[in-house]
Parts: sequence; C-alpha cells; structure tokens
Amino acid sequence: MTAYRSPCPIATTLDIVGDRWTLVILRDLLTGKSRYSEFLTSPERITTNILADRLEKMEAAGLIERSPYQQRPLRHAYRLTDMGRALHPMLREMCRWANRYVPGTWTPPESFVRE
Amino acid sequence: MTAYRSPCPIATTLDIVGDRWTLVILRDLLTGKSRYSEFLTSPERITTNILADRLEKMEAAGLIERSPYQQRPLRHAYRLTDMGRALHPMLREMCRWANRYVPGTWTPPESFVRE
Repeated sequence: MTAYRSPCPIATTLDIVGDRWTLVILRDLLTGKSRYSEFLTSPERITTNILADRLEKMEAAGLIERSPYQQRPLRHAYRLTDMGRALHPMLREMCRWANRYVPGTWTPPESFVRE
Repeated sequence: MTAYRSPCPIATTLDIVGDRWTLVILRDLLTGKSRYSEFLTSPERITTNILADRLEKMEAAGLIERSPYQQRPLRHAYRLTDMGRALHPMLREMCRWANRYVPGTWTPPESFVRE
C-alpha cells in the first residue's frame, strides 16, 4: 500500500490493518501459528479466499515474510517482521478493552498481555 | 451488535470497530469534535452515507450517545460514552506504531499520547 487517506497515524494504521481479519491472522502469528492450514483452524473460521487475500496484503505491507517449508507441493510458512510484531501492544489494548466492556470474552494468557 | 465470531477479545473488538472509518470518527470525538458537519471536514473526507452509517452503528454498540442541540431542523451532537472513551489507549498504540513504521505520519499532540 502506498497511498494513505491522510498523514494521520490513526487513519494510516487503519489503511493498513483496518479490517475484520488482518489482526486475527496477526494474533495467530503472535501466538505461534505459521502455516496456512493452521490459520484455517482458528475459531473464527476464516475462509480460504479471505485468508489468501490478507496474507498477500500483509506481505506487501511488510507485516509478514514467507518462506517455503515444503517443495512438492510448494507450501509456505509465514512469520512476522519487526513491523508486524510491533502491533502487539495495540492487540494488548484491544484485549483489555473487550475484557472490560464485552461480557464473555476470553481472558488472554498472561504471557500475551504482559508488557 | 450481538453475535461475535468467537469469544476472542481481539476478534470481538474487530467485530465492533474493525473497519477503516469507525476509529477515525472516534479520534475526532476524542479530539473535541461532536457534530455531523465537523466530522465531514476531517482530512480523510468521509462521505455522508458512511458517516451516517457508522454513527448509527457506534450508537447501537454503546460507543457514543447523541442529544439534540437544535430543533428546526433537528441536529444532534455526539459524545463518547465511557466504553467509547476507553478505546483511547488503543488509538495511542496505533499512533506510536505508525509514527515508527510509516514515514511521514503526523506526530499527535502530546496531550493525546500521554498516558
């Protein structure tokens, strides 16, 4: 992505990760998943077309990198770049907010919310 | 909104505010705007139909409240609820992230990023 709506850092962040799925995939990467098939097993049940689209956009945005882990058929593993990993504090605040205001949400592991 | 994709606090937060516009409006409310016409003047140039839709959804989600400030024609002012205001720390992390990783983004006023 090269053009943002404004130089506002909030609008710009939303231009990059402001949709319902990108940060769900990022959560999975932060908690140890790395393969296409693993993302599909998450409870939100992302569809294959959305998953493929978001992985491609996340790589183009510099949030993730991929490398082959198998040749026939070719399969890639995904991992966060420093830029992607740096979104962790934002996800931490999302957890705090939902845990406080939305009844029934899971409390994340202490290791995830610890600063 | 009543049904979420999962009990994950990240997915749930995204179900509520995970789009490109809701948090731009919330930023404007946090920085002192309250009227429909004021939101339209922001540099992201939100359209009237998206603005009306998001304000309605934000009110339904409990993030904002509205009250009339003029009768003929009827005009409403919007303000954040405690639940809406509590998203501020998340926006602060978005600012830090974009300021660090996306060249050219504005540095927000100290009053906005101070804990």
